[in-house]
Amino acid sequence: MLDWLRQYRRALLPGDISAGVVVAMMMIPQGMAYALVAGLPPVAGIYASILPPLVYAVFGSSMTQSVGPMAIVSLMTAAVVGPLAPAGSGLYGVLAAQLALVAGVVLLLCGALRLGFLANFFSRPVMSGFTVGCALVIAAGQLQPLLGGRWNAPHLPSALLGIAAIAALLAAKYGLAPLLRRCGLRAPHADMAARLAPMFVVVAATVLAAAYDLGARGVRLTGAVPSGLPELNLALSMRHWDTLLQPGLLIGFIVFLMSMSAAQAMALKRNEKLAGNRELIGLGAANVASMVSGGFPVTGSMSRSAVNFSAGANTPLASVITAALLALALVAPTGWLAWLPLPALAATIIVAVLGMLDLDTLRLAWRYDRGDALAWLATGAGVVALGVEAGVIVGVALSMGTLIWRASRPHIAVLGRIAGSEHFRNVERYPAATEPEMVVLRIDANLFFGNAEEVSARIEEELRTHPSARDLVLVMSAVSSIDTTALLALTELNASLKRRAIGLHLAEVKGPVMDRLRHSDFLAALNGQLFLSTAMACDHLHQTAAGTLCPVRT
Amino acid sequence: MLDWLRQYRRALLPGDISAGVVVAMMMIPQGMAYALVAGLPPVAGIYASILPPLVYAVFGSSMTQSVGPMAIVSLMTAAVVGPLAPAGSGLYGVLAAQLALVAGVVLLLCGALRLGFLANFFSRPVMSGFTVGCALVIAAGQLQPLLGGRWNAPHLPSALLGIAAIAALLAAKYGLAPLLRRCGLRAPHADMAARLAPMFVVVAATVLAAAYDLGARGVRLTGAVPSGLPELNLALSMRHWDTLLQPGLLIGFIVFLMSMSAAQAMALKRNEKLAGNRELIGLGAANVASMVSGGFPVTGSMSRSAVNFSAGANTPLASVITAALLALALVAPTGWLAWLPLPALAATIIVAVLGMLDLDTLRLAWRYDRGDALAWLATGAGVVALGVEAGVIVGVALSMGTLIWRASRPHIAVLGRIAGSEHFRNVERYPAATEPEMVVLRIDANLFFGNAEEVSARIEEELRTHPSARDLVLVMSAVSSIDTTALLALTELNASLKRRAIGLHLAEVKGPVMDRLRHSDFLAALNGQLFLSTAMACDHLHQTAAGTLCPVRT
Repeated sequence: MLDWLRQYRRALLPGDISAGVVVAMMMIPQGMAYALVAGLPPVAGIYASILPPLVYAVFGSSMTQSVGPMAIVSLMTAAVVGPLAPAGSGLYGVLAAQLALVAGVVLLLCGALRLGFLANFFSRPVMSGFTVGCALVIAAGQLQPLLGGRWNAPHLPSALLGIAAIAALLAAKYGLAPLLRRCGLRAPHADMAARLAPMFVVVAATVLAAAYDLGARGVRLTGAVPSGLPELNLALSMRHWDTLLQPGLLIGFIVFLMSMSAAQAMALKRNEKLAGNRELIGLGAANVASMVSGGFPVTGSMSRSAVNFSAGANTPLASVITAALLALALVAPTGWLAWLPLPALAATIIVAVLGMLDLDTLRLAWRYDRGDALAWLATGAGVVALGVEAGVIVGVALSMGTLIWRASRPHIAVLGRIAGSEHFRNVERYPAATEPEMVVLRIDANLFFGNAEEVSARIEEELRTHPSARDLVLVMSAVSSIDTTALLALTELNASLKRRAIGLHLAEVKGPVMDRLRHSDFLAALNGQLFLSTAMACDHLHQTAAGTLCPVRT
Repeated sequence: MLDWLRQYRRALLPGDISAGVVVAMMMIPQGMAYALVAGLPPVAGIYASILPPLVYAVFGSSMTQSVGPMAIVSLMTAAVVGPLAPAGSGLYGVLAAQLALVAGVVLLLCGALRLGFLANFFSRPVMSGFTVGCALVIAAGQLQPLLGGRWNAPHLPSALLGIAAIAALLAAKYGLAPLLRRCGLRAPHADMAARLAPMFVVVAATVLAAAYDLGARGVRLTGAVPSGLPELNLALSMRHWDTLLQPGLLIGFIVFLMSMSAAQAMALKRNEKLAGNRELIGLGAANVASMVSGGFPVTGSMSRSAVNFSAGANTPLASVITAALLALALVAPTGWLAWLPLPALAATIIVAVLGMLDLDTLRLAWRYDRGDALAWLATGAGVVALGVEAGVIVGVALSMGTLIWRASRPHIAVLGRIAGSEHFRNVERYPAATEPEMVVLRIDANLFFGNAEEVSARIEEELRTHPSARDLVLVMSAVSSIDTTALLALTELNASLKRRAIGLHLAEVKGPVMDRLRHSDFLAALNGQLFLSTAMACDHLHQTAAGTLCPVRT
């Protein structure tokens, strides 16, 4: 913890300061916008951007992660709290903070139990489909604030302002960076300046709203934003613990996944090592801190962390500077924020989530692995049709289903001897010779509950096509583990073969597998022998079949 | 379908008749008892034992499966319907039947989608822990009917009758079979006779209750059982579809698992092939039939199927005979059943579920694989502490968690050359020589989302310990598949190595993997070469490093 602070060198400071300033300017409109997505007053988004990153700087593992509100997690918050409390009520805020607490405690527990490997529960196509589905749901939810009414009955001044803001943001996103580069700015700096467009658009819209009194013309404004730092919040709703537990688990899971994928992208660039368990602790503590400061669930954001990274952040000091600047913004007069028009904020959300519409992964998966592409589509459709929570569950179920389905079709090769050699190869790929009395099978998978029955069934099938077989040799060179279920299946196979007077022999069993098998009764009951190599097994069984004396087991 | 009927031979008839009669005598008390476990009137258990096995005989895959009420599925039914409707109400019966319909439709859909591989979602230790947990919950639930009151305030005549019935059943279970064998009966016949003890105990208790008018003494009796066949039931509660969907999914899953493990046990004995997808269709149709005849969710029962098997059942005709006899029992006067004392029925349930307390699997797992043993304990504890539905979810989560956890720790070996040979082996196990400029790693796992990040991280770690490496050779001989997530991770690894001017070479890539990779841009972007063998890779890279000209890619 705080290794980065102990080893801090002065040379790191300029980068951290510039990144801290840039991210703070990005964070103000983003925090407010994502608070709206979560169904909360905009200031809650600023609250959630101060204490959480400070706490993460102490406990987290990544040097450049920017922890705070994030679109998908805000959407999930709204989906959970929406049905439980009226929008704008005190209870709504209490439940959103309590959800952060539940998610935070879940993350801390997972960290304490070292469950960092849970990040592997989602495949990337499923993650990509989930993100795109969420982006569509968020964008659809912002259409009404953007247009000041339903799409078929917009409020004209609001709609004009909103669409103008979108146009400005898109122009900045796709036009500003190339322009600045042509003006001689270095590419990373040009990109970074373009990333600050939301701040300028929000300021410009606020000035416009104040100058032309747009509120009086029916454009919805943010309204008074309370000045001063967030107060300590310990309010909880005791009768909602049960209701918040399961969604808190899901949100904790998504918080971790989102943060890990952001951290992974950056670790790769800097060739750094990631610590999943440290990340769990850092995110857990950040969410508890968010609850205490009246916020809502937070996570590491890919887009903001990327800006932090390219603006020069070297250590979490950048996040500390961001947090200090946001605190300053709250202490300074906040009266001007009351004029901020909601259509402009909706525009920043829509343009931000458009950047999440990654179709490249779908395209790649479609070409490379149709099953992965279908999982992408099903997860995305699940989020859009059934909601974001159901989408997570569909995603996990599909990832696991694909895994079990693949595992349930293990590759098993019939081996034959390459004439005149000690080599045994797949008879389907090599001109290898087999013997009618002996079936040699190589199992190309670890044996576990997902394929144990299938492997037994496939072995029985091979024996059915070789009715004269007296010996079965299983080549275990590719088997690195055998779990209890597979051990039981092998035990049953052995008993069944014994009844039919067919020998069961194992060859090339790996060291760790053999160590494990010695803890069971399987080896003692084995109706056959163990051999170091396939060639030794076949030579020996051949001699035995030919009537030669059988030597001792190897 | 009905292949068995078309190929029926007269020689199969005696076995089918004796099995049909024996199972019918077992089914009457068992069906009534499991209906009580499900919270339904006893006659519903008989209803659920007539049409479902007939339908299964047409659509199912197993020759000797006995489909009908089963303890665990009845427990799940009670857990779902209990909170939704008052016990004994018409709605309770409607919802129990509706649950069978939902589970049946789920099973039929899974069958149509060929999802038979879902049977692999539970490891055997988890299944065993789940069964033991359910057995304990069922036994605990029967204590009150057995004793006619709470355990600390029993109703004396009921308790005496119940405990006497347990004693008689245990004596029959452990004493009768050996006794009959000593009297010259063949072992399977002796066992079978002992299995009929519940029928005799129930009849004896009924006679006792009628003779001594136990009802007047406060012993609870079954009460009037309606005579005649079940009527067509199409009553459904429209406002409960939502509520029943998720439990119906879970029950469908458990129905399938229970039936498959019974079928697997028998298929193994007869060396038959199992058809998971046919089994899904058969069980789905049986559950729809159960709904139509006023029953509740049904499945294949391991204990009853074992009796059916050892009583000589050759084909589903045995089940047809059982169903016909049960229908006859309902058409015959059923007045005597009203005298059946509930404590005796509770005794048959308790003794039946005691047989489910399999601790052998736990013992084996404890010795062989501690993780599997902990999964057993957690699932059993989950069922007892959180209920049977939560138990299923805990079980699936643990099975999947174990799988992902194991997958996230793939074996990767650093290879070196065995002096003077073409063989490359793990340097930790063999005296193999490495070169400082070249790292050769063999990946001993299929690459997929569960281990993709971990493999990248491990490769980077190896490179960190070999700072002078200019070339990395990945030996892919054990990699049978690479999914989209792993392909993306390899693409990123390749880009990262390219930036650091380290070559990435692949050796011994399997045919199907190479075919798949050709559908991506990975090979074109590869910062290195493909080699047929590890030796060729090393020889070639060695020459190149020594300044020799580099030949074309293989």
